[in-house]
Amino acid sequence: MALNEFDDLKIVALAGGVGGAKLAHGLAGVLPPENLTVIVNVADDFELYGLTICPDLDTVMYTLAGIASPETGWGIAGDTFHCMESLIQLSAPAWFRLGDRDLATHLARTRRLWDGETLTQVTRHLCASLGIGPRILPCTDDLLRTIVETDEGDLEFQEYFVRRKCDPAVRGFILRGKEAALPTREFLAALEEADAVVFCPSNPLVSLGPILALPGVRERIAGANTVAVTPIIGGRAVKGPLAKMFSELGRESSAVEAAREYRPLLRGFVLDREDASRTGEIESLGMRVETADTLMRDEPGRRELAARVLRFAQSLAAE
Amino acid sequence: MALNEFDDLKIVALAGGVGGAKLAHGLAGVLPPENLTVIVNVADDFELYGLTICPDLDTVMYTLAGIASPETGWGIAGDTFHCMESLIQLSAPAWFRLGDRDLATHLARTRRLWDGETLTQVTRHLCASLGIGPRILPCTDDLLRTIVETDEGDLEFQEYFVRRKCDPAVRGFILRGKEAALPTREFLAALEEADAVVFCPSNPLVSLGPILALPGVRERIAGANTVAVTPIIGGRAVKGPLAKMFSELGRESSAVEAAREYRPLLRGFVLDREDASRTGEIESLGMRVETADTLMRDEPGRRELAARVLRFAQSLAAE
Repeated sequence: MALNEFDDLKIVALAGGVGGAKLAHGLAGVLPPENLTVIVNVADDFELYGLTICPDLDTVMYTLAGIASPETGWGIAGDTFHCMESLIQLSAPAWFRLGDRDLATHLARTRRLWDGETLTQVTRHLCASLGIGPRILPCTDDLLRTIVETDEGDLEFQEYFVRRKCDPAVRGFILRGKEAALPTREFLAALEEADAVVFCPSNPLVSLGPILALPGVRERIAGANTVAVTPIIGGRAVKGPLAKMFSELGRESSAVEAAREYRPLLRGFVLDREDASRTGEIESLGMRVETADTLMRDEPGRRELAARVLRFAQSLAAE
Repeated sequence: MALNEFDDLKIVALAGGVGGAKLAHGLAGVLPPENLTVIVNVADDFELYGLTICPDLDTVMYTLAGIASPETGWGIAGDTFHCMESLIQLSAPAWFRLGDRDLATHLARTRRLWDGETLTQVTRHLCASLGIGPRILPCTDDLLRTIVETDEGDLEFQEYFVRRKCDPAVRGFILRGKEAALPTREFLAALEEADAVVFCPSNPLVSLGPILALPGVRERIAGANTVAVTPIIGGRAVKGPLAKMFSELGRESSAVEAAREYRPLLRGFVLDREDASRTGEIESLGMRVETADTLMRDEPGRRELAARVLRFAQSLAAE
């Protein structure tokens, strides 16, 4: 891409975990850091051993800091699990794998929350310590939790996702706290200033859904220039349970269904080349479609897709 | 010693940190496990990162489990500090050194406390997981905290002990919570059954003092067969700030002063050979005196001293 091609573009990216973190990393690679704000889902946060654990925030932070574990998609590259090994010896719950270095994030975060800082403030401190340039913001400082309704009863998200490995069949979702939770002032201000809002390739039901459910967010986004990258390629979620969820909810496991989930907020949808045949269906939802290789196999792949998305957004703005 | 020499002896040992743990370990080596109850100080417990940390309980547990770090006197042998290294990178407080495996104890304990277990119950679980035979009991399940009054103001015990390395001059102590804290039922029941109560070589001011300050404890101990091992050898505390504290409080740094602190509870006092010349002074406090090598350089040394203490207690009971 041309040097400084996107220097005047202010972007808000909405992200969940691994897929969102990868595109956010790509965006961080092509945008000036001060022009990128990544809004992250907190509805799969949870408490373990009295610690506040924010899996999506951590994945985005670690990925942008360049320390994310490439093998697992969570945690820190090269981390050890000595604490975990001892927890198992002490018969303590060990279903959520906590690396020794990763644990420091949870400890430092929990301590600052106990000291009265908001999650937004805590995240700012953690990002500064990790040398992260772009702004990473939790979508809310309030309690917001996805409960997964399954054929085996209601499960907290991480119970479903990690402990039960997405095995129970999904019947629906409850977003606990949505009546009281507010988007942060920083989130709303970033939306006001944004030239485009990028929906990263995250789960529309449980990752971006909770962000969009916060009061006032859909209304503000509705007027913005919006582009989503498909979280589904060829009927499969790249990572995570989205395809399985769609199927269990009686819906098609497809990019079209993901696009439908964001209607009427989206102006543009980036479809994977593999699904190019579905272009017409998505256009009929009222979206422009761009096809691209969306898999982001490596870091150049993340930047390429990011640049592609930004150019697509610019073209939509010019219409 | 003769095989099974102490099989009929039920012992309660009062212990603080390293010195107390060593003698408790010696006692565990010569007594049937079911005949030994170690009552541990909790007044230097504290909260860090939202975790409940019990330094004396941990030192006693790790020592009896055979996993204590011999170099440091705290923590687990061969532990790593990866979490700590990351905490430092995250600008989080790192003055209290938390090993990765040690951290598992604090996490497991905190989780069980949050689940509503008492510290007594939690400690029982941890001891069972660590394969510890004798019973280790916190002296109370209630809040009890030593505040050190110093020339630089009041400090929580670990702030004084670890963060400030015992540097500020001590003016006195406040035992926060002593109006409301109760000794546990298990502690009192063990006292009722005990043939002898052993005061381990721990700090009488801040380790055994808080145990003895609990309501009803002194009264119950006053009628028992009681023996203390000196925490001071030749004017020096073997480990910890006792000699410095005595000096700053205008008292002599000596075994005699330590014995005086326990008056009138003690029947017998084990003095180090090095201090044999002070025998008469301690006898004038109303105690029998036994001299021994009290330093416990190695594990056989712990058992030898333990056997010596028990025989001394038996001889007092026979009087």
